[in-house]
Amino acid sequence: MYLEKINHPNDIKKVPRAKLNVLAQEIREFLIESISETGGHLGANLGTVELTMALHLCLDFPEDKLIFDVGHQSYTHKILTGRREEFPTLRKHGGIAGFPKTSESDCDAFNTGHSSTSISAGLGMATARTLNGKNNTVVSVIGDGALTGGMAYEALNNAGKSNTKFIVVLNDNNMSISENVGGVSQYLDNVRTTEKYLELKEGVKGKLSHVPRGNEMISRIQKAKASLKSFVIPGMFFEEMGLTYLGPIDGHDISAMVKALNEAKRCKTPVLVHVLTKKGKGYLPAERHPARFHGAEPFEIETGLPKYKRVDPNYTDVFSTVMCKMGERDKDVCAITAAMPDGTGLKRFRSMYPDRFFDVGIAEEHAVTFAAGLAMGGLKPIVCIYSSFLQRAYDQMIHDVCIQNLHVVFAIDRAGIVGSDGETHQGIFDLSFLSTIPNMCVMAPKNKWELSDMMKFAVNYDGPVAIRYPRGKAYDGLSEFRAPIEYGQAEWINMESDICLLAVGSMVKTAVEVRDKLKGMGKNVSILNVRFVNPFDKEMILDALKTHKHLVTMEENVKAGGFGENIAEFLSSQGRFAKLTNISIPDIYVEHGNVDILKKEIGLDADSIVDKILKDGEGLS
Amino acid sequence: MYLEKINHPNDIKKVPRAKLNVLAQEIREFLIESISETGGHLGANLGTVELTMALHLCLDFPEDKLIFDVGHQSYTHKILTGRREEFPTLRKHGGIAGFPKTSESDCDAFNTGHSSTSISAGLGMATARTLNGKNNTVVSVIGDGALTGGMAYEALNNAGKSNTKFIVVLNDNNMSISENVGGVSQYLDNVRTTEKYLELKEGVKGKLSHVPRGNEMISRIQKAKASLKSFVIPGMFFEEMGLTYLGPIDGHDISAMVKALNEAKRCKTPVLVHVLTKKGKGYLPAERHPARFHGAEPFEIETGLPKYKRVDPNYTDVFSTVMCKMGERDKDVCAITAAMPDGTGLKRFRSMYPDRFFDVGIAEEHAVTFAAGLAMGGLKPIVCIYSSFLQRAYDQMIHDVCIQNLHVVFAIDRAGIVGSDGETHQGIFDLSFLSTIPNMCVMAPKNKWELSDMMKFAVNYDGPVAIRYPRGKAYDGLSEFRAPIEYGQAEWINMESDICLLAVGSMVKTAVEVRDKLKGMGKNVSILNVRFVNPFDKEMILDALKTHKHLVTMEENVKAGGFGENIAEFLSSQGRFAKLTNISIPDIYVEHGNVDILKKEIGLDADSIVDKILKDGEGLS
Repeated sequence: MYLEKINHPNDIKKVPRAKLNVLAQEIREFLIESISETGGHLGANLGTVELTMALHLCLDFPEDKLIFDVGHQSYTHKILTGRREEFPTLRKHGGIAGFPKTSESDCDAFNTGHSSTSISAGLGMATARTLNGKNNTVVSVIGDGALTGGMAYEALNNAGKSNTKFIVVLNDNNMSISENVGGVSQYLDNVRTTEKYLELKEGVKGKLSHVPRGNEMISRIQKAKASLKSFVIPGMFFEEMGLTYLGPIDGHDISAMVKALNEAKRCKTPVLVHVLTKKGKGYLPAERHPARFHGAEPFEIETGLPKYKRVDPNYTDVFSTVMCKMGERDKDVCAITAAMPDGTGLKRFRSMYPDRFFDVGIAEEHAVTFAAGLAMGGLKPIVCIYSSFLQRAYDQMIHDVCIQNLHVVFAIDRAGIVGSDGETHQGIFDLSFLSTIPNMCVMAPKNKWELSDMMKFAVNYDGPVAIRYPRGKAYDGLSEFRAPIEYGQAEWINMESDICLLAVGSMVKTAVEVRDKLKGMGKNVSILNVRFVNPFDKEMILDALKTHKHLVTMEENVKAGGFGENIAEFLSSQGRFAKLTNISIPDIYVEHGNVDILKKEIGLDADSIVDKILKDGEGLS
Repeated sequence: MYLEKINHPNDIKKVPRAKLNVLAQEIREFLIESISETGGHLGANLGTVELTMALHLCLDFPEDKLIFDVGHQSYTHKILTGRREEFPTLRKHGGIAGFPKTSESDCDAFNTGHSSTSISAGLGMATARTLNGKNNTVVSVIGDGALTGGMAYEALNNAGKSNTKFIVVLNDNNMSISENVGGVSQYLDNVRTTEKYLELKEGVKGKLSHVPRGNEMISRIQKAKASLKSFVIPGMFFEEMGLTYLGPIDGHDISAMVKALNEAKRCKTPVLVHVLTKKGKGYLPAERHPARFHGAEPFEIETGLPKYKRVDPNYTDVFSTVMCKMGERDKDVCAITAAMPDGTGLKRFRSMYPDRFFDVGIAEEHAVTFAAGLAMGGLKPIVCIYSSFLQRAYDQMIHDVCIQNLHVVFAIDRAGIVGSDGETHQGIFDLSFLSTIPNMCVMAPKNKWELSDMMKFAVNYDGPVAIRYPRGKAYDGLSEFRAPIEYGQAEWINMESDICLLAVGSMVKTAVEVRDKLKGMGKNVSILNVRFVNPFDKEMILDALKTHKHLVTMEENVKAGGFGENIAEFLSSQGRFAKLTNISIPDIYVEHGNVDILKKEIGLDADSIVDKILKDGEGLS
């Protein structure tokens, strides 16, 4: 076992060259076994075993800096930097994260989680390195999917003009960007990645820059060269942006990659190394079902099937069904996803109404403004983006949708605490940022039927409207409460006196638990299902004040700018001073772990809420 | 005068072909004269006179849809659609806007203001058109500057794969993207823009798609063609993305553009028409000083000099000076702008410290994450972005800067009501969205010295920190109040009893006026300069409660999620019920106009505030 000898950063360099493929195989087996127990991003990690090994053979940690775009492909990096034994704790509360974390290891150069950030961050670090007079290597590894995000293009555009020593590795795992176009390419490729080519390039530039009109000549030579290259090789796109292109290289051939990376390291300006890999490589179920093994639940290694069969439908399933029904009934209904047809549940809609389904790539900004265009053209677009990714399109929601008051529906999945993906993926800001946007109607359903009813309301509403719902099992309690959805109106679940729980979306379920516990202590407790966070139901809240002396706002969202603050301001503007308890997420980033544990930790579970209500209510009765 | 005959949409088509250049000259003279009186975006509009005319000759309004990216180049379009006589009201309260507005004319297809949105919106409208079975033309006009924004790339990428009939006009006014590379290009160019080429392309595709392995052949032919083309012509970049490229075309030659646009209209898939124009064309001062005439104040036509000389320094000047001083004292200080070296006042810093100055293009997302990379590398980046444009980087502030608690300084100019640019440019959401972000320290200075002091504090702070300051003259009152800036601490301007004004940044000046008016009515009034909106000074606010029964929060920001709501929640969480008046911007979009008029209209002027305080305070004493 070579793997057992890898316990510290840079240990891989002691492995004999001839045994690197054995080590790769051991890492692969370790990943499959480990992730089959804990769950995690298997496919991406199996695809990058050799790439990560090649990077570790060429870099020195922690001096050199390696930034993984999105970051879910960093498992082999974690193994190679001494974190192998912590894999049983992967993505668990208190355990190692599923993404790079600077707080976890000084070999993790930059935290990631969202897509398309790595080139910007890497270029910043490379620029700082140069300004600081240092010479370490900075590498950003980005997938071809992440390249569909506009931010990656902004960064490439800046890298290209920067003259900064910096390496971008394009991990191309579906050949969507370009293909090897034959023998001549192969040949030129070899030529271009040798020292001679690089020396020539630097040398000619150096000499010409001292000659009168030399810069013009450099520019002409570069143009001619660029044209020639594009005739036979596929990297023209990147060369046009000003990066030196090396590739394509077999991403499962360690020595080919080591050779290319070492060439890239010698280059004094930005280089793009194009590497072709296969998602799920070496594990047949993952190769065959890339979507299922993207973020996998624990599975049986032999069959690749999940260990624990999911029985109850989740909110995504409910959304999926209602979308298909609405698509049937109304030919104007369109669906838009940013590279998440599976995760958002739009796969079925896609197969039923392919003309009205749009997967725009990892491009949330475009998704929202494209939807605004569809709405301006008379269609009814439903944009389905996870809560934390929708942060990307805050400006587009204001500028393109809501100023023009366009009828775009935002279906916001993964709102609230999401669990094992951690800080970058928690959907805990949306009620706040959505509520700042004039004209935006903001809703949250209490259970699965209400999500369905709200979607139908939203499609028939005329203006921008957002519905946020959480990850996981759809709540199927309170089925008897199905009053029609009316704009801006809340719903009484029960009306007693003294304490009134004003619960938003997922917190209605928790409110039921809280009420039952408090009633067990002899308290009188009402529950108001808020339904509309913006505009909220002012009349019903004033009604609640008549018979309750203690209001409790409950939301799975940060306190700042959330529903609770809105209510506090409203009451004070009315000169109505009731005891008000704010149950929300404190002003922190919530780490990864089991949702129930996390909720307990941040005080969002029923017991903590009961304690807080009792404490706040002391002396009231 | 041909111009006088243009009073309705499509009137231009009645002008004899031979007289179009006369009309162009008349429009140019009209623009210069009119904007010399009102101010406005002169340079961009002089550059697009012929382009807009050519578009109007080829399109039918309002059936066809024309979307202007950013939109400040839409003046000729406004003239040609019957709004000439309203130009004396341009950008004035109640007058015509400086940007396209669907509410102003049915010939304005989509509101714009921010950069890089037009291709997404246009693609959406073109897609809706096709799904609705219509056949009208959709054209998006985008500048080469706006193409540096990632969103434009996301949209091009989607347009390229869409097979939707759609025209993008690239208005290239500094030749930065590509050049005509000689005779062969010229020739091929002619070939490519003729009907034959387009027929050939469609014909071959149509035939081959029915042949076995035909699609593979199409793909091969396309590759060969693409390679060939890139050898001699400059549009490779766009062709690689899947758009048909036509150009480059002289953007001041109406008939050449009409020819190209008519070819483009015949194409059934997306086309990019590349047009070369000159900013400021036809008015020498504007040709020579493009930055000065980008957004011009009223000027003397003969000299091109401003009519009204600015005497008092504005906040941008103050920022500019302190940046240069800090750059001198601390070699780690870097400055980043998103294509606004003039507007942000960083021009001087650029000339003094070119190595530490970064203009990233219109790429706010990259700007912020690049800054995060610089900070991770040990430098002290100051990111200077206007408030409304920073909305673009909300996710990057959370995900790349604040989760990692990196020391990035955000200098946020144009915060609050900006005036004549209107809805899209008002910086009225920043206090809300910044306050939702854990770890972000948020400040606002009361006067010019405090901006300077806060900048110095921010550079020496260790963590993410934002300073927001308004457009226009820097307040130079209260010079005697210059207590050192301490983290999270407010500052008493005066301390009396009864009414306490808690004023944020620009509102401190207003608070002084309000206090003086109220004192004239015999009231006791204190002013607390809030300084830190996040974290705000809890102790001082509790202190204020001891001696005041009426607190008034004052901020130039929307109410939702703003400082006032934070305070309302804080007081209610403390069980402290004081009379609280919230002075902020109501939940609406604020249109263009004079800042003082707008403030009066939304209740942010001293008189309105006094009235509201008196009304709220009735019965208190």
